[in-house]
Amino acid sequence: MIKKIQVATSGQGLYEITHRVESLLAESKNKEGLCSLFVRHTSCSLIIQENADPSARIDLENWMNRLVPENDALYTHTFEGQDDMPAHIKSVLTATQLSIPFEDGKLLSGTWQGIFLWEHRHAAHCRDIVLHFI
Amino acid sequence: MIKKIQVATSGQGLYEITHRVESLLAESKNKEGLCSLFVRHTSCSLIIQENADPSARIDLENWMNRLVPENDALYTHTFEGQDDMPAHIKSVLTATQLSIPFEDGKLLSGTWQGIFLWEHRHAAHCRDIVLHFI
Amino acid sequence: MIKKIQVATSGQGLYEITHRVESLLAESKNKEGLCSLFVRHTSCSLIIQENADPSARIDLENWMNRLVPENDALYTHTFEGQDDMPAHIKSVLTATQLSIPFEDGKLLSGTWQGIFLWEHRHAAHCRDIVLHFI
Repeated sequence: MIKKIQVATSGQGLYEITHRVESLLAESKNKEGLCSLFVRHTSCSLIIQENADPSARIDLENWMNRLVPENDALYTHTFEGQDDMPAHIKSVLTATQLSIPFEDGKLLSGTWQGIFLWEHRHAAHCRDIVLHFI
Repeated sequence: MIKKIQVATSGQGLYEITHRVESLLAESKNKEGLCSLFVRHTSCSLIIQENADPSARIDLENWMNRLVPENDALYTHTFEGQDDMPAHIKSVLTATQLSIPFEDGKLLSGTWQGIFLWEHRHAAHCRDIVLHFI
Repeated sequence: MIKKIQVATSGQGLYEITHRVESLLAESKNKEGLCSLFVRHTSCSLIIQENADPSARIDLENWMNRLVPENDALYTHTFEGQDDMPAHIKSVLTATQLSIPFEDGKLLSGTWQGIFLWEHRHAAHCRDIVLHFI
């Protein structure tokens, strides 16, 4: 079963989508299987990360921005802005797709694991994510 | 359903395989489900990346080669050549496996998303990729 | 079908779990399909890497520890120890989930590919991994 969601982003950051995935799983009436998420863009990511303490996510973003800075003389692909090439690189270093098992109608992700869309662009975007339940 | 393809590589670079995956999906007659790709090697990767402007892929390769250079004094695993250990590291930083949903017999990847085998070795190789449709 | 395993870790390192996955696949009597692994933590990873020469894994660990060092002034999320934030970052740079196709009851991973839990914390942990066979 295929489901589609959209996430409206307003600049770089981690947008939690755990509850939306859980709701769609509950609606689907599937009890046991695999939930796969796929983001249809190359300048944002899907990640699983600690959802308890926001400081972990802030450090993660700052660390990644230091590793993949804007205004790097190496970039030639710059006509879409200085944040575009770093966004593509971050997308490749993280993930475009996640598969999470579920049982008794609930995701088997750990207590501290949240599902996040990681927006790498500064401008507002509407991001399409496809979910597949089996 | 399992399908196998081989990609002949002639040095480092991104080799697009989107059309081959689409063809196998069409042949399989599957209409809705999940297409999983798995590469059977630890010195190349599978990635989804922008397929429109080649400059994005060139920057990506140059950036990764700067992050994971050859001839790093840290490496002890060098008997297969100076490009071998960087290849293993790049493989871990990217992906060995991708799962992409499909509907109406077509991949639900985004307009600008291509599927690429990323070869990290200099010498010519024949790379095995396994596809699974469900 | 869902199966669960635990891996007891005693400090940072790569813990091979290939044989445990193969055993569970054999027990499941599944012949052809996709085996998905998911680790329920954000401070360790699942990776596929060369299982032949241990020097490749040592170099991989040393390289990653140099890229993501402890005691980085950037970190604010430090109350769980200096190895906690690097562990979260390494988890995001590698993978939380893997899907591997199988045929004739055997994983289709390559000859030199092993499946590893990569522990990023110093203290001993018990890590939960969920397997899903379809």
